[in-house]
Amino acid sequence: MIEWKNLDKAAAYGELKQLKDKVCLKEAMAGENGARRAKEYSLPMAAGMTYNYAAKAVDDEVLAALKKLAEEMQLSEKYQALLSGAVINTGEKRLVLHQLTRGQLAGEVIADGVNKREFYVGEQKKAADFAEKVHNGQIVNEKGETFTTAVQIGIGGSDLGPRAIYLALENWAKKNNTFKMEAKFISNVDPDDAAAVLNSIDVSRALFVLVSKSGTTLETLTNESFVKDALKKQGLDPAKHMVAVTSETSPLAKSSDYLGAFFMDDYIGGRYSSSSCVGGVILSLAFGPDVFARFLNGAAEEDRLAMEKDPLKNADMLDALIGVYERNVQGWPSTAVLPYSQALSRFPAHLQQLDMESNGKSVNRDGAPVDYVTGPIIFGEPGTNGQHSFYQLLHQGTDIVPLQFVGYRQNQCGMDVDIQGSTSQQKLCANVAAQIMAFACGKEDANPNKSFAGGRPSSIIIADAVTPETVGALLAHFENKVMFQGFVWNVNSFDQEGVQLGKVLAKRVLAHETDGALKVFSDLLGI
Amino acid sequence: MIEWKNLDKAAAYGELKQLKDKVCLKEAMAGENGARRAKEYSLPMAAGMTYNYAAKAVDDEVLAALKKLAEEMQLSEKYQALLSGAVINTGEKRLVLHQLTRGQLAGEVIADGVNKREFYVGEQKKAADFAEKVHNGQIVNEKGETFTTAVQIGIGGSDLGPRAIYLALENWAKKNNTFKMEAKFISNVDPDDAAAVLNSIDVSRALFVLVSKSGTTLETLTNESFVKDALKKQGLDPAKHMVAVTSETSPLAKSSDYLGAFFMDDYIGGRYSSSSCVGGVILSLAFGPDVFARFLNGAAEEDRLAMEKDPLKNADMLDALIGVYERNVQGWPSTAVLPYSQALSRFPAHLQQLDMESNGKSVNRDGAPVDYVTGPIIFGEPGTNGQHSFYQLLHQGTDIVPLQFVGYRQNQCGMDVDIQGSTSQQKLCANVAAQIMAFACGKEDANPNKSFAGGRPSSIIIADAVTPETVGALLAHFENKVMFQGFVWNVNSFDQEGVQLGKVLAKRVLAHETDGALKVFSDLLGI
Repeated sequence: MIEWKNLDKAAAYGELKQLKDKVCLKEAMAGENGARRAKEYSLPMAAGMTYNYAAKAVDDEVLAALKKLAEEMQLSEKYQALLSGAVINTGEKRLVLHQLTRGQLAGEVIADGVNKREFYVGEQKKAADFAEKVHNGQIVNEKGETFTTAVQIGIGGSDLGPRAIYLALENWAKKNNTFKMEAKFISNVDPDDAAAVLNSIDVSRALFVLVSKSGTTLETLTNESFVKDALKKQGLDPAKHMVAVTSETSPLAKSSDYLGAFFMDDYIGGRYSSSSCVGGVILSLAFGPDVFARFLNGAAEEDRLAMEKDPLKNADMLDALIGVYERNVQGWPSTAVLPYSQALSRFPAHLQQLDMESNGKSVNRDGAPVDYVTGPIIFGEPGTNGQHSFYQLLHQGTDIVPLQFVGYRQNQCGMDVDIQGSTSQQKLCANVAAQIMAFACGKEDANPNKSFAGGRPSSIIIADAVTPETVGALLAHFENKVMFQGFVWNVNSFDQEGVQLGKVLAKRVLAHETDGALKVFSDLLGI
Repeated sequence: MIEWKNLDKAAAYGELKQLKDKVCLKEAMAGENGARRAKEYSLPMAAGMTYNYAAKAVDDEVLAALKKLAEEMQLSEKYQALLSGAVINTGEKRLVLHQLTRGQLAGEVIADGVNKREFYVGEQKKAADFAEKVHNGQIVNEKGETFTTAVQIGIGGSDLGPRAIYLALENWAKKNNTFKMEAKFISNVDPDDAAAVLNSIDVSRALFVLVSKSGTTLETLTNESFVKDALKKQGLDPAKHMVAVTSETSPLAKSSDYLGAFFMDDYIGGRYSSSSCVGGVILSLAFGPDVFARFLNGAAEEDRLAMEKDPLKNADMLDALIGVYERNVQGWPSTAVLPYSQALSRFPAHLQQLDMESNGKSVNRDGAPVDYVTGPIIFGEPGTNGQHSFYQLLHQGTDIVPLQFVGYRQNQCGMDVDIQGSTSQQKLCANVAAQIMAFACGKEDANPNKSFAGGRPSSIIIADAVTPETVGALLAHFENKVMFQGFVWNVNSFDQEGVQLGKVLAKRVLAHETDGALKVFSDLLGI
């Protein structure tokens, strides 16, 4: 029997709080003890990846307390319930089924009379068939020419995840001869966004993928009209250039305005939808369906590993728990995500949405206010770029920021150069290794301005290379981490009521139904 | 006589601390009082821009206390000293002269026997002449063809600012027929970064701008070699495809490996160098020297406005002071920068470096530890994209995050579409106006999950459009804000000792001179 309760009702949380500042990271990571930790505090992940938490400020006692917390909060049971089709999204009274798009880990999930795994697989198949027809010239433009560019029109979850994954795999696909067509993305209601994309492509050979679950997202519908206008001005028929990714009940679903429609449903939130057709159509068009299938496999394997009940054997759950310790016990309000791969340049932006929109909540899953802090601020840029930017504050600022590194042994393009006795790839890897130790152990100096206090915790996920499988596994890792943290905080990680008020007020501004300061600001902005 | 002292030694700081939670923003921004604030709490900036702080949690009493603090900390006098050539960068014992690249606001600054204003103007002139020769075909490749792409090779301050400005003005320049050539950027030591850029251009018609003040930045020199290799493989002469931006004393300065060299000096830190030749060469190549000159004019005008002694008439200084109130009195550890323009997509990343690398310090300008918090975490993405991402946490999370909006009345491309009675541009502006009020005032709801507590402070900078002048003014505003905050915190905002330790350890890894945990991590990463 699952009991949903607030974190501060957990006896294990009381014990955990006694362990504030338990570990002196600087000492723990020094010498042979540090070497032992670096070897032992490590867990396997999917696709041959490893999660190493040696440089986190935990020890066996803290870990034991985290394990008790995981057991008392029934994290594994709650994940199992989610997989089995429980109504985990309490606010909207919905199932949460994004893991089902990539595998079936519990029994069949039937909702609305439909076997949902079959439904998702069926839509993936549709997307794959469609992409293949585009690639082999069965689906072409009015002049019989093949399409050369795919343009996703979507915002938030319909944009950030698919865009981050596209960028992650673009050069891999080119190197591995699976690159089929360029993808572009239009998201912002700022008309300059759509204008710039349209000015950069041959519109007559572009296929647009309109993504809106509800079919009512104002930014996306506005950009759709913008694009349709542009197509018409070139004498092109928009219906021959556009497909929709939406829910079956949306106004877009049966429209004749599209070449085809691919379906998702209310059981997959936008920020969790990369492995549904929201990511599937554009990524299958760009790289071919096989690459998207490999991405799904990586995610599915990570989802399966996340079922392990013991958090000390479960990287996704342990990462979540250490984050809770850092946030609620140590009191650190933010976390930086730092992938050492240029291919992951927009992955932090996706994780920022995934995490902050999921767990940036002040009420629990029953709608009652909570008395503890929840989701942290997430930010990040790729290393080594970040090293020459905000790392100064991370090393020597007055606040401690927990870090999440991601490192790869190999690059994607296979082009490299040997300078001063090492390759670029070796320099990249040397830097991430060095940073872990610099943050953990610091360095004393007679000049305080050159001193490093150390004691700044980090973990690292290590993989061979950025491939479809490792990208899928990495995405699933963070989705599962966020889910487990939501369970610990007893919040609903799957709704986003916080985005509503702005929408309501914006409509009021556009209708000129404003007074007070809102009217003044509207005037100042020339509306 | 200027007295440099720590913030906690200031009597005015003691008074300010008494004013914690002084303002109930929700009440202050409601009704007619809110309308009055929105009209009155506003200051002019350069290039016709406005800084509006009505939705910040301040009132006349807090503002008066901030003014006293500004006076006691001698912010205006310190800025004047900086402009006059004082050694403000105490750690490295250097003058701080980035404002001098765009105007001379105090007397002549002579350093090392050189009139520095004349030096900077002379280098700008060299860059302008060079760019014009490239544009008019006097400088061409080996085959006599014009160059079509300029590629900046640099990292950190040699990358983020110029890249953000290039993206900000790319579509403006195309629309206004001043677009001369495409610019690309290579920064990361990850070899996939350079490989991807080189694969995307016609290398035979590319001009590379190598940027390293010291001439010893490892990432940049590595990427230079990568590029030279690629040029040679195509039978091209690297010396015919590359210029250097560096200091006169660097090993690059007199090298015959370059078509030419443009100089900066030690008095301009990387993150403040966009208005030097670090930005000047690439931006003059991309948009023409006149556009770069207009950018400098906007910055110069903002620098001049920042000289106003009364902080209640000085947007840069007031923004800084309100930030100190939020950080040190209210205890809020981060700030989000949210430009409502897709053109500013990478401006937050530049500000992240500018702010966090400048003021992420734990020692004062004399090298003694400080007993108060300094620079906050800075992050952000363009609106409306952010609204569909991390705004959930900003609205309903457990922490308060101060916000810095930037809004524009007009778009750049002049293409728009009317949907549901409003244009995209109107929707964009309506959203930022709505967000200010939603954050400030919130909205109660019987369902706590749909309730918004409000009380979340923001300011907004409003301009007509993203133009060379407004981009220059916006950049200078934030540079000056960071400088004034550094004065308040009594830190040296112009060095970055925190980046050194990682470099030292990385070299050790590459030399295989490691033991303990560092050796284990090096092994795990396959070095």
